[in-house]
Amino acid sequence: MKEIINSMEVPERLKRQLEFALEIDKEKNIFRQTHLSGHGRNENDAEHAWHMAIMAYLLREYANEEVDISRVMIMCLIHDIVEIDAGDTYAYDTAGLATQKEREDAAKERIFSLLPEEQKQELIALFDEFEACETAESCFAHAMDNLQPLLLNNSNGGGDWKEHGVTAQQVYGRQSKTRQGSEVLYQVTDAIIQENIRKGNLPEK
Amino acid sequence: MKEIINSMEVPERLKRQLEFALEIDKEKNIFRQTHLSGHGRNENDAEHAWHMAIMAYLLREYANEEVDISRVMIMCLIHDIVEIDAGDTYAYDTAGLATQKEREDAAKERIFSLLPEEQKQELIALFDEFEACETAESCFAHAMDNLQPLLLNNSNGGGDWKEHGVTAQQVYGRQSKTRQGSEVLYQVTDAIIQENIRKGNLPEK
Repeated sequence: MKEIINSMEVPERLKRQLEFALEIDKEKNIFRQTHLSGHGRNENDAEHAWHMAIMAYLLREYANEEVDISRVMIMCLIHDIVEIDAGDTYAYDTAGLATQKEREDAAKERIFSLLPEEQKQELIALFDEFEACETAESCFAHAMDNLQPLLLNNSNGGGDWKEHGVTAQQVYGRQSKTRQGSEVLYQVTDAIIQENIRKGNLPEK
Repeated sequence: MKEIINSMEVPERLKRQLEFALEIDKEKNIFRQTHLSGHGRNENDAEHAWHMAIMAYLLREYANEEVDISRVMIMCLIHDIVEIDAGDTYAYDTAGLATQKEREDAAKERIFSLLPEEQKQELIALFDEFEACETAESCFAHAMDNLQPLLLNNSNGGGDWKEHGVTAQQVYGRQSKTRQGSEVLYQVTDAIIQENIRKGNLPEK
């Protein structure tokens, strides 16, 4: 790769974009705690992001406010890129969550700096917007970030919760962002959680 | 899942959308001939589609004509869903290519029929548009479909070509769609192919 993209034939701007494209390939090796449906293997970040982006497109009618779907999709697609350096922090890992921001900030700077400056700024702005969860697009993207693993975990009888001793109280804590993004999808989430409590897949506290 | 989405609380339309969302999880188990960078494992379709969609967003300035980027991204994200049933057909597998359309048509009907009717029609139209490669968006999505594995394979010293005895002539045959989508990215492609011929990674014929 280096030899090609150092060739005179390829402009510097495009070289940087291709370097970034190759770098993010590593996200496919960052594995999450969620398992694929059919009691499959652990899911990786790239698969999770792909799944979220399609769900966002198909479920956009349920966003609390009208959303710019291309902004939601690109936010979904890039929101875990920092984990190439920072690793995946499980949603209920309290110790990991304490250092998550520092690790992810360093990663954000290194990885997005591979891009041309204005694209670096654009992607950092999208990443920060997602994290802040204050706009219609970012809240809806967060709803996908929560609903996607919930669908998988529910299809597997709540195996991921059982493995980590997660309680319904913890799951509800995380779902507040779903409600900010989509009241309708929060109602579905609530139905799924309640069903899993009834089935004994998820202790209440 | 079935129990939840059969509950009275979830409208029929949303049930169908969630069934589809769960079904496409299976795309993560469809593996391609391309290997991840760093001489990694085989890539799967979901990872490939995620990578293409981000590349499309970042490289859209190089499309021959201005593109609606949300249409390009969703086309990239869904273009391999039919392979859940039809399997991956390697770009240079002549026997497989002969039956590919029939297998993929049946898959398209089954899988997209899980969705509400108008979303089924919308996604089939996007899928067909991609396949036909006649619009600016679909040609640019095809450019990504070609460039993404080329970047990975190039980074691995052309290992995927060597494994399958692929020639430069075959690679060029496939790249005509890249040129329809992006003249600039075709020039990069050409530089990469030529470099691999020089290095002995790819025989000319």
